[in-house]
Amino acid sequence: MVWELVALLAGAISIGLAAYLYRWVMAQPNDNPQMKEFSEAIQVGAAAYLRRLYQALAGLAAVLFIIVLIVIGWQSAVAFLAGALCSGIAGYFGMYVATRANARVAWAARTGLEKAFPVGFFAGAVMGMSVVGLALIGMTVLLMIFGDPEVVLGFSFGASLMALLAKAGGGIYTKTADIGADLVGKVEFDLAEDDPRNPAVIADNVGDNVGDVAGMGADIFDSYVASVVAVMILGYALYRDNPAYVLYPLLLSAAGILASMIGMLFVRTGGSNDPGRALNTGTLATTGIFAILALGVVYAVGVDQPMGIYWPTIAGLLAGIVIGFTSDRFTDIDQNAVQSTANAANTGPAILILDGFSYGLVSIVPSIVGIVIAMVAAWFLAEQNGLAGTYGVSVAAVGMLAITGMIVSSDAYGPIVDNAKGCAEAGHEDEETIRVCDRLDAAGNTAKAITKGFAIGAAALTVLALFSAYAETVGLTALDLLNPGIIVGLFLGSMMPPLFSAMTMLSVSRNAFKMVEEIRRQFREIPGILEGTVPPDSTLCVDIATQGALRELVGPGVLALVVPIAVGLVLGTHALGGFLAGSIVTGIIFALFMANAGGLWDNAKKFIEDGAHGGPGSEAHKAAVVGDTVGDPFKDTAGPSLNTLITVMSLVATVFAPLIARFALFAL
Amino acid sequence: MVWELVALLAGAISIGLAAYLYRWVMAQPNDNPQMKEFSEAIQVGAAAYLRRLYQALAGLAAVLFIIVLIVIGWQSAVAFLAGALCSGIAGYFGMYVATRANARVAWAARTGLEKAFPVGFFAGAVMGMSVVGLALIGMTVLLMIFGDPEVVLGFSFGASLMALLAKAGGGIYTKTADIGADLVGKVEFDLAEDDPRNPAVIADNVGDNVGDVAGMGADIFDSYVASVVAVMILGYALYRDNPAYVLYPLLLSAAGILASMIGMLFVRTGGSNDPGRALNTGTLATTGIFAILALGVVYAVGVDQPMGIYWPTIAGLLAGIVIGFTSDRFTDIDQNAVQSTANAANTGPAILILDGFSYGLVSIVPSIVGIVIAMVAAWFLAEQNGLAGTYGVSVAAVGMLAITGMIVSSDAYGPIVDNAKGCAEAGHEDEETIRVCDRLDAAGNTAKAITKGFAIGAAALTVLALFSAYAETVGLTALDLLNPGIIVGLFLGSMMPPLFSAMTMLSVSRNAFKMVEEIRRQFREIPGILEGTVPPDSTLCVDIATQGALRELVGPGVLALVVPIAVGLVLGTHALGGFLAGSIVTGIIFALFMANAGGLWDNAKKFIEDGAHGGPGSEAHKAAVVGDTVGDPFKDTAGPSLNTLITVMSLVATVFAPLIARFALFAL
Repeated sequence: MVWELVALLAGAISIGLAAYLYRWVMAQPNDNPQMKEFSEAIQVGAAAYLRRLYQALAGLAAVLFIIVLIVIGWQSAVAFLAGALCSGIAGYFGMYVATRANARVAWAARTGLEKAFPVGFFAGAVMGMSVVGLALIGMTVLLMIFGDPEVVLGFSFGASLMALLAKAGGGIYTKTADIGADLVGKVEFDLAEDDPRNPAVIADNVGDNVGDVAGMGADIFDSYVASVVAVMILGYALYRDNPAYVLYPLLLSAAGILASMIGMLFVRTGGSNDPGRALNTGTLATTGIFAILALGVVYAVGVDQPMGIYWPTIAGLLAGIVIGFTSDRFTDIDQNAVQSTANAANTGPAILILDGFSYGLVSIVPSIVGIVIAMVAAWFLAEQNGLAGTYGVSVAAVGMLAITGMIVSSDAYGPIVDNAKGCAEAGHEDEETIRVCDRLDAAGNTAKAITKGFAIGAAALTVLALFSAYAETVGLTALDLLNPGIIVGLFLGSMMPPLFSAMTMLSVSRNAFKMVEEIRRQFREIPGILEGTVPPDSTLCVDIATQGALRELVGPGVLALVVPIAVGLVLGTHALGGFLAGSIVTGIIFALFMANAGGLWDNAKKFIEDGAHGGPGSEAHKAAVVGDTVGDPFKDTAGPSLNTLITVMSLVATVFAPLIARFALFAL
Repeated sequence: MVWELVALLAGAISIGLAAYLYRWVMAQPNDNPQMKEFSEAIQVGAAAYLRRLYQALAGLAAVLFIIVLIVIGWQSAVAFLAGALCSGIAGYFGMYVATRANARVAWAARTGLEKAFPVGFFAGAVMGMSVVGLALIGMTVLLMIFGDPEVVLGFSFGASLMALLAKAGGGIYTKTADIGADLVGKVEFDLAEDDPRNPAVIADNVGDNVGDVAGMGADIFDSYVASVVAVMILGYALYRDNPAYVLYPLLLSAAGILASMIGMLFVRTGGSNDPGRALNTGTLATTGIFAILALGVVYAVGVDQPMGIYWPTIAGLLAGIVIGFTSDRFTDIDQNAVQSTANAANTGPAILILDGFSYGLVSIVPSIVGIVIAMVAAWFLAEQNGLAGTYGVSVAAVGMLAITGMIVSSDAYGPIVDNAKGCAEAGHEDEETIRVCDRLDAAGNTAKAITKGFAIGAAALTVLALFSAYAETVGLTALDLLNPGIIVGLFLGSMMPPLFSAMTMLSVSRNAFKMVEEIRRQFREIPGILEGTVPPDSTLCVDIATQGALRELVGPGVLALVVPIAVGLVLGTHALGGFLAGSIVTGIIFALFMANAGGLWDNAKKFIEDGAHGGPGSEAHKAAVVGDTVGDPFKDTAGPSLNTLITVMSLVATVFAPLIARFALFAL
């Protein structure tokens, strides 16, 4: 019981820190009324979207609550609700702060980078510490009450469902607004980014927050919980007589919280004035501190093979760092892939798109090799020390995700400072202030490349752990690829990520189409809008993005929930195992490909905007804008939702495993 | 022995028919000297490319001959050479006729469609009957001499390697020329397609032949042989005491040849004047006749369960037809996917590309469901009749491919009549003649959609059969997805098709870049070229395409050969099994996606050219041209090479299985 209390304490400290940082951020001044107004419009838009998203989700959650209640039991149903609720609260709180911090960062930027940076970072940390704190408290309380990891699985399922819809919905919202604003505002009317005369500019800024803050927070909340639950289930199944194997991931998370808190002290721009380096120093410091704390945990928790669980933990942690720091090789503006793609812009958009597409495909290689090495290393390090290999792999996933507090803080920093720039422009601040905001923003992009690699690596190990947890739960002893049922499952599962990507991207294009029409209508029908004498009707654009995102969520959401259960009920637990394996493989491939191709086109455009191949306004630049627009839904809508999709499907399969095992039609 | 002689006789009849049709086509007149000249330039260019490709291949084949000789034995080495040689001869012969038939079709088109159509179709049939005849004779002779299907496997390996390089090389060649010709000629100088002033026009027409005739012939030769060999190996391993199980696929092929010959009698435009319908009637007639002949074969050949092999054969055949006739749902110009993609062109190229990309991903669903149903049906129909399920699946692949003679004939017809239009334009024939050529060409595109579905479905079943043959050869009894080695293999294998696609597409873009520079140089430096008074230097463009294609083949070729062996030698036969499974899954997904997305963009452009959204010259049309250019290497370079890639890797793994089993480092 003492270890559970330690975990609870760590969670409470985390929430306490988040509350403290929230008060600190809110105490920062902003005396520019135009910036206030701009920021408030974003707050209103974001709150409106989240309110409607959560209303819709409440309906869905109620239906699923009843289904889980009937099929599995009331404990799991309660846990399911708690998971959805905690994820929602963390996302909402994070976004609440983020949409209030943007103008404060911009105001602080007037006095220089050193003042503005902490406002942005600590606002991000509110989200980071809320995520880990709520997750840890939720899981620990459920384990203390019910004593059964299968019940905690319901918590993970709730969080995961929330994440899928928040992430995909946010992704559709943000790109609808972004593409709409760009296609009409920038291309047709030659307005600058964030020009307040553009009717979609508020929606675009709201989008940054609902996609990159609320969506991303829910996403990592989901991975974090899922990785811990996978270890719990495997620990419970494999080592039933020693609760240390179930408690270990909770204590590892507690150590991660402590490490993140200490690591944050290293996030200082100091003399260097380089915010990107400050963020990376914080991440590396957190990693080092966590490695030491974890050593204490493995010896204290009371497992039989302390080093057998320590090494897989460290393998996961190191793999996360390595994947994070190498994954930007294909998207970095100074590297060959981006520059040769930018060079292709001289022949027009077609070859630029082909090149970005191709390099995006090549870019999956290092990350997948990294994931595979981490998995094999964790497996053998565990087996060599007398532990089950599957337990080792699942521990590696927790090791990778333990420093989530720090990772989310750096990641949420990005959209906050991005918005700050918009505020500064809306507030007509001077060029020096905008330049400071630009530098803060650039650091956000560097941090994002690293956290993105981290997130995908962690998700991959987590779903592999969930895959083992599924096999353990349904009692599979083997999953033989020579059996046609497994092959059928493998094929069907492997179709899901491409299909899901296609559905969300078609949603964006349908919605963006409506947005384009509305913006054009406003420019045509509202006199004085282009002269800046009459403000545009931003609310209508916010409405289009909001309604579209919610309506378009239905299809992908149903796909993720219904297909795994249908495959299981028709073809049985073995075919469903093959289905999960297939979805994991193509899910990771498409997630990496889409994220990297999108990032690459984005940076090819920036490379030209920095003056290459004729610079802004040239034909090459126009071609690069096309590439960037294609890449936007790749990197911000479809790509980031895929790891959540495969987590959700693994959880659905595991939660409904008893039902499937009993009622399967054919059981191939 | 009598059955082997029947198979040989059928092969000889097939070759005899090809020779007869060749003489008939060559006897057709062409009295337009300009068309002659144009056609001869294509002949010279195509022959030059094939000569250099075969020279390069001869070197590679010699190296592999020595490796196979040392590692496996002289019998397999001889079979390997024979396979490469037969494939090369069939491709060369087919292209020899095709490049001579084009002008004759154009000349016949002066007197109407009814005269011109048979010239095009019978010229295609020369290729179709050569492919099946040479394949059947080669396999039968090797089986008669050595009596061991493992030796015939070498024949398949040789054919497959040839196909991979012919297909990928041809794909790079044809798109280099096509994109180069379009980007400069059409976009910058506003020339029409096939305008003889364009320096790349000859290279473009050569490309149609080396890609769609020689490459496609080698590709289907490869699938055809591989499917037969897979059945032989499984039949030999599972039912060693009854040679009927080994002979069955050869006799099925013989029946397919007979059915194709009779089916060709149904290919008549008659009163309908609809060449597309004539081709489809021929395919359906061949299918029906084959189904009856196959019933005779299963009773005559002497297996214990005639219906147990008959039903899987028919399941494969029907699946081929169904996949073929439904696969154009996403690429058909009258359907929603193409029209809504074309509609997106109104907002510029970006959303058009996103929509085509997304529909391309959705389009994989019906085909994969079809493949999966065919596989499961064949499996259970075999098992229910007391046969091994794996044998049933492999028989289904042969059933699907048995009517290859007819399929290849219809398919080769396409590029021949496409070239005929170029000839008619170069020969300044009247509008009515060009209109007839256009209608012949449209029929070729309809036939192509069906044969493409067929080819991918057949390739999928074939590699699944090869996968079983691999497992049988290395003696795997299970391939457990819960084993980390299999998961590692699965991930590594699944990376190969995307990586291979990326490499070939980057090759196209590098090469097209050079082509663009050369065409621009000619327009700049050769006075009188635009006025048509001085001919362009076509040879230089042919050289760029040829050299580029050969140079760029090295990387993808090495990838396909070396990686499977390396994975096997380092991680062992089980991981290699997972590797093959992973490559099959993503190989089929990417092949379907790329073929369909490319076809969709192509038709979206045609839809606009037919007058929608402002018609030719509008902004929407320009956007659609960008989409088409992106889609070109998708559908003609990367996509069609992928089924060959997975066949080659499966064969490499099976051929080198003894080596791998003995020397594997870790054997995960």
